[in-house]
Amino acid sequence: MPQAPSDTLSRRHAAIRYRLTALGLDALVVTSMPNVLYLTNFTGSSAIVVLTADRLLFVTDFRYVAAIDRTRGTAAECPALEIERVDSSYDETLAALLDSLPGARVGFEARHLTVGRHQWLEASLRKRSRVSLVPTDGVVEAARVTKDAFEIAILREGAIRLSHVARQVLQAVRRGQTEREVAAAIDDRLRGGGFEKPAFDTIVASGPNGALPHAQPGERKLTEGDLVVLDFGGVYASYCVDLTRTVSIGASAPRAREVYAAVLEAHDQAIAAVAPGRSRFDIDAAARDALKRRGLAEAFGHGTGHGLGIDVHEDPRITRRRAETPVSAVKSETEGEHRGDQVSPGMVFTIEPGAYIPGWGGVRIEDDVLVTDAGVDVLTNVTTELLEI
Amino acid sequence: MPQAPSDTLSRRHAAIRYRLTALGLDALVVTSMPNVLYLTNFTGSSAIVVLTADRLLFVTDFRYVAAIDRTRGTAAECPALEIERVDSSYDETLAALLDSLPGARVGFEARHLTVGRHQWLEASLRKRSRVSLVPTDGVVEAARVTKDAFEIAILREGAIRLSHVARQVLQAVRRGQTEREVAAAIDDRLRGGGFEKPAFDTIVASGPNGALPHAQPGERKLTEGDLVVLDFGGVYASYCVDLTRTVSIGASAPRAREVYAAVLEAHDQAIAAVAPGRSRFDIDAAARDALKRRGLAEAFGHGTGHGLGIDVHEDPRITRRRAETPVSAVKSETEGEHRGDQVSPGMVFTIEPGAYIPGWGGVRIEDDVLVTDAGVDVLTNVTTELLEI
Repeated sequence: MPQAPSDTLSRRHAAIRYRLTALGLDALVVTSMPNVLYLTNFTGSSAIVVLTADRLLFVTDFRYVAAIDRTRGTAAECPALEIERVDSSYDETLAALLDSLPGARVGFEARHLTVGRHQWLEASLRKRSRVSLVPTDGVVEAARVTKDAFEIAILREGAIRLSHVARQVLQAVRRGQTEREVAAAIDDRLRGGGFEKPAFDTIVASGPNGALPHAQPGERKLTEGDLVVLDFGGVYASYCVDLTRTVSIGASAPRAREVYAAVLEAHDQAIAAVAPGRSRFDIDAAARDALKRRGLAEAFGHGTGHGLGIDVHEDPRITRRRAETPVSAVKSETEGEHRGDQVSPGMVFTIEPGAYIPGWGGVRIEDDVLVTDAGVDVLTNVTTELLEI
Repeated sequence: MPQAPSDTLSRRHAAIRYRLTALGLDALVVTSMPNVLYLTNFTGSSAIVVLTADRLLFVTDFRYVAAIDRTRGTAAECPALEIERVDSSYDETLAALLDSLPGARVGFEARHLTVGRHQWLEASLRKRSRVSLVPTDGVVEAARVTKDAFEIAILREGAIRLSHVARQVLQAVRRGQTEREVAAAIDDRLRGGGFEKPAFDTIVASGPNGALPHAQPGERKLTEGDLVVLDFGGVYASYCVDLTRTVSIGASAPRAREVYAAVLEAHDQAIAAVAPGRSRFDIDAAARDALKRRGLAEAFGHGTGHGLGIDVHEDPRITRRRAETPVSAVKSETEGEHRGDQVSPGMVFTIEPGAYIPGWGGVRIEDDVLVTDAGVDVLTNVTTELLEI
């Protein structure tokens, strides 16, 4: 799989160091694994990065030391990475390492460090080292919002592959299959399409189940007259892409066509509203207003989109001005505060309006877009016609 | 999929309430999703439980309200569950709810609540409500260590299914396939075997790659003379099972047979050491001593096993007395403190010794065991002979 070139990693380090200086910090402890990957190309499951003005200390255990050594001298080597091997526990290694930075003001990631680990670290730092731990909020995440050239290339490729998978899925889905069978077939095609894994649990929601934006696929069979929401994504070279289409089993009823047309208009209007300098709230409003005009304001309870990257749900959140729960944000509890409102070139996010009518069903149409200097590129490319299967 | 019966949930609530009384707490805020599932059968991605002496408040958003309503009156209904619907953000809803418990001492899960969310909650609680937030450590996890009858039945069924998948895998694997192809085939069979998803990223590590306990499957082809480590698991009815076998491609060399025999002896000795009242450290020592006798002490760098349940790595940790990193514990940073040492009936964990020799390769053999009143049940059941393929 492609990995970020060393000079790209260097630029990412420089951006974070610049921010640390502005915050008056001597170092940043990075405990979020997606942030560790962003800074180092490390795809293992356990590591901590300590970034200082001139060093990158990489805390990991024996399982990964050999894997990192093998990247030495390759084009994707993390520059200036120094391995600090864990002997007993990660946090003991980290505490010893911080003690070697006497008097330092050390930022930690308040979104990712638990209260338990923080308390332990505070208690373990030697008094004489006078290291102070300072909470920070989203330092690396802020850099990740704007994708660099490597990331854009990967997300483009992932979206092309996902579109290919979607076309196969739309051709293969048949009445009589259970939701669970269709979901398993989608997951197979994702793997066949070169994805490392599904980006989230695949959603296949048929008939009335479509009214639940996050239905889990079950034993219900796809039945004449159903609308079926198919929402799936893949991880390609560690980056997530995400797509939804809604199909009709057999000829669609007038009400289904009406709701579908309203959601499609919302989708198209939201994409048309994407341009550098536009507020993310205005993009959401473009979708919401279209549904409102068709009397479906109440049926659209989630946000219009979410950022894509190493996480399947990241900034920017395309939502109402008031923070709300995006359809698929699994960790939205503390998010949505203190963010810039304008979208800018290099941002990649979903546009996924929907309408959910209890007892009847639902429609969602989702594509992935990139903000460019000129406006917007739609990265996914699959028909948005209402297919009758 | 089977779900815990209502009376099982009631007993779990009672056990936690008993512990809260002992801790002098009026309520516990549960933010860990596996803990929420344990207390309510909820398998969605976002919710918070507030358990008081006589209430179970369930905070979730519109996506899940309908799904919960559908469980009303079923055998798996969560008793006395009161839905608190999120309007804007989870933590705002939680803060408002806690403000309605004036003067309460409210425990939170220090292992799971981030510093950022904790700070926000502290700042948001109204001064006049005088709610105090008290860190707790592993209250629900401590209950989860001992599986109840429902959980044991599920884990037994999962282990039977996983053994069946393993037998298929061992028959199907062929020289010339790439690690990635074999991993994809394993994942397909897991789904075909009734698992909801793989319990972790499947490991297929061939030849020298076997020296990395957590190798990621790559483009290397299975080659004559390789040992190949196959480590995979599945999630069945929300519970994780986990199994490893190591096979030889073609006739095995004498060194391969030696190392394999040593690891198998370690595996068998560790299982023989499992009994109620035995220390988890002694079980680990049984495996470690066997490898030491064969000169492989240095080649076994990880712990002998980890608990299985809703999480694929939970207590008990079968490790050296000094806390160390189990082979597959992805979140081991703060664990290993303040735990009872003795294993007892109802505990389910892996036994997975290995030997890893840089440049040469590795061997790991893993089964899942249940501690019973009489001793031990091995739940997985697949040959431990060195298969030559």
